[in-house]
Amino acid sequence: MSKLAVVALGGNALLRGDQKGTIDEQEQNTADTLENMVYLLKEDYNLVISHGNGPQVGNILMRNDAGEQIYSIAQMPLDICVADSQGGIGYMIERILRNVLRKHDIDKNVISVITQVVVDKNDRAFNDPRKRVGKIYSKSEAEELMKSKGWIFKEEVKAEGGWRRVVPSPVPISIMNEEIIRDLALAGNVVIAAGGGGIPVYIDEENNVRPAEAVIDKDLASSLMGARIRADEFYILTDVPYVYINYKKPDQKIMEFLNYADCYKYLKQGMFSEGSMAPKIRAALNFIEKGGNKSVITEATKLEDRSFGTKITMEYEN
Amino acid sequence: MSKLAVVALGGNALLRGDQKGTIDEQEQNTADTLENMVYLLKEDYNLVISHGNGPQVGNILMRNDAGEQIYSIAQMPLDICVADSQGGIGYMIERILRNVLRKHDIDKNVISVITQVVVDKNDRAFNDPRKRVGKIYSKSEAEELMKSKGWIFKEEVKAEGGWRRVVPSPVPISIMNEEIIRDLALAGNVVIAAGGGGIPVYIDEENNVRPAEAVIDKDLASSLMGARIRADEFYILTDVPYVYINYKKPDQKIMEFLNYADCYKYLKQGMFSEGSMAPKIRAALNFIEKGGNKSVITEATKLEDRSFGTKITMEYEN
Repeated sequence: MSKLAVVALGGNALLRGDQKGTIDEQEQNTADTLENMVYLLKEDYNLVISHGNGPQVGNILMRNDAGEQIYSIAQMPLDICVADSQGGIGYMIERILRNVLRKHDIDKNVISVITQVVVDKNDRAFNDPRKRVGKIYSKSEAEELMKSKGWIFKEEVKAEGGWRRVVPSPVPISIMNEEIIRDLALAGNVVIAAGGGGIPVYIDEENNVRPAEAVIDKDLASSLMGARIRADEFYILTDVPYVYINYKKPDQKIMEFLNYADCYKYLKQGMFSEGSMAPKIRAALNFIEKGGNKSVITEATKLEDRSFGTKITMEYEN
Repeated sequence: MSKLAVVALGGNALLRGDQKGTIDEQEQNTADTLENMVYLLKEDYNLVISHGNGPQVGNILMRNDAGEQIYSIAQMPLDICVADSQGGIGYMIERILRNVLRKHDIDKNVISVITQVVVDKNDRAFNDPRKRVGKIYSKSEAEELMKSKGWIFKEEVKAEGGWRRVVPSPVPISIMNEEIIRDLALAGNVVIAAGGGGIPVYIDEENNVRPAEAVIDKDLASSLMGARIRADEFYILTDVPYVYINYKKPDQKIMEFLNYADCYKYLKQGMFSEGSMAPKIRAALNFIEKGGNKSVITEATKLEDRSFGTKITMEYEN
């Protein structure tokens, strides 16, 4: 029987930091990434694809700011901006993947599902917003926006300075329509879901679904989705071929296999940088903890050789 | 067995022309509209909901313009803007509908599907763009944009003048994932699909799916979806309770029932205004032509009394 896998595409898979963000660049990067995933599709995996939205939702937030300034168009809250980005990116991936599948004579359909992800409104992240979003403001602009919109700001530590809005990044607890996502994938559709970490919502006292002004870590939401749809494997595609210990130090070591306990120990020892690998490791461990068989962290270009990449399992494979 | 119906929500259902477009207004309008649809849901219809996106995609286009002006952020093409609007609006409808269903103890799930709609690249609309989108430009700005982006402009006829981008509005020929949309609806999910007329794409000579810089009439795409998913009934919710003959004239007459032939005759006689009722009539006829049983044009608030509204069928009911 075909294995079920969730593949989380990193930000670089769609748009690199050194690019301007034109649609041509985004489409080319997406096509390159999806070409590399053909190896998984040819092996007859059932796939659910999730994706980041950092640069895209950043641009949507900046456009909201600019549209208010020039044309007095009401700004949309963060949940709508994330939902917008799921629409645009989900469509782009779906359209291009259809062409890649056709090129390789792989008979699979593709469908993109707008995905709300539920968080706990008592998550302590709501009292400690840390995730930086949108544009960099001057101190006086930031103070004005704190008053007018209730936004919270933190000072930028980078050379150019300035202030940036911070929002909570709560832990995802469930994925709306997770059973449908599973069923669609098991029926042979490649499903695109939980983009940008999902649209964050919470359930209030009266059981109503309410929008949360927050963003959810994309890898964590993807690993939760993997566990909830009972996926066998969880792939995080990033810009390094392996997880390393002592990364970029003289005693740097490639970790080809990691069991849960060792990986967790290295994480606690601070072996993985908070800005990049640590959240991926947490997501990979989260998938195993919740019953998944194997998490793989690697580059998209390495999927051709399935022996590549760091494989994390509960116990070392013999 | 439950009937299957497609319900197309008009622009006013989500955002009225006299409103600013804040998220609070949009959410309130959406909640009011969905409350009125409870009567259909209680009668155990299986429903697919489509929606307009005029004001929302208009704002997205204006924000794209403003973001380029202030922050030099690359503008996205029209297909991505429509896809963005499907994400934001689809999510908003889904979240609010979940709350409305819960309030009325109706045990149904909701799912939003990003929907590409296929048009023919040889559609003559591509040689005759007419649909006005985005902001009003001065003549010199319009000339600049014709050169830099290849956009086509038409002069505004309204008092304030100016120039506006026009794009093709081709005829929709198929709905991607139409069988999945049908299956999800028959399984009891309320499906939100083909928002804003769908994301327009065409199939090129090599069978690749390509983006079309166009917009598709929302009611026409919805009626096609209705026919393709073999829906029994097709509802167009608008801001009048009935279709009228001699509308706003001394001999104005409510048409409670119309058969295909009479309705077609009135359309050809110019009885319905091109800016508002004529496209709805075309969509209603299109559904019947393609095998649907009944098209209904009415206000959302009138759904409680099912005898209300204009019912269009192939033959008059006896």
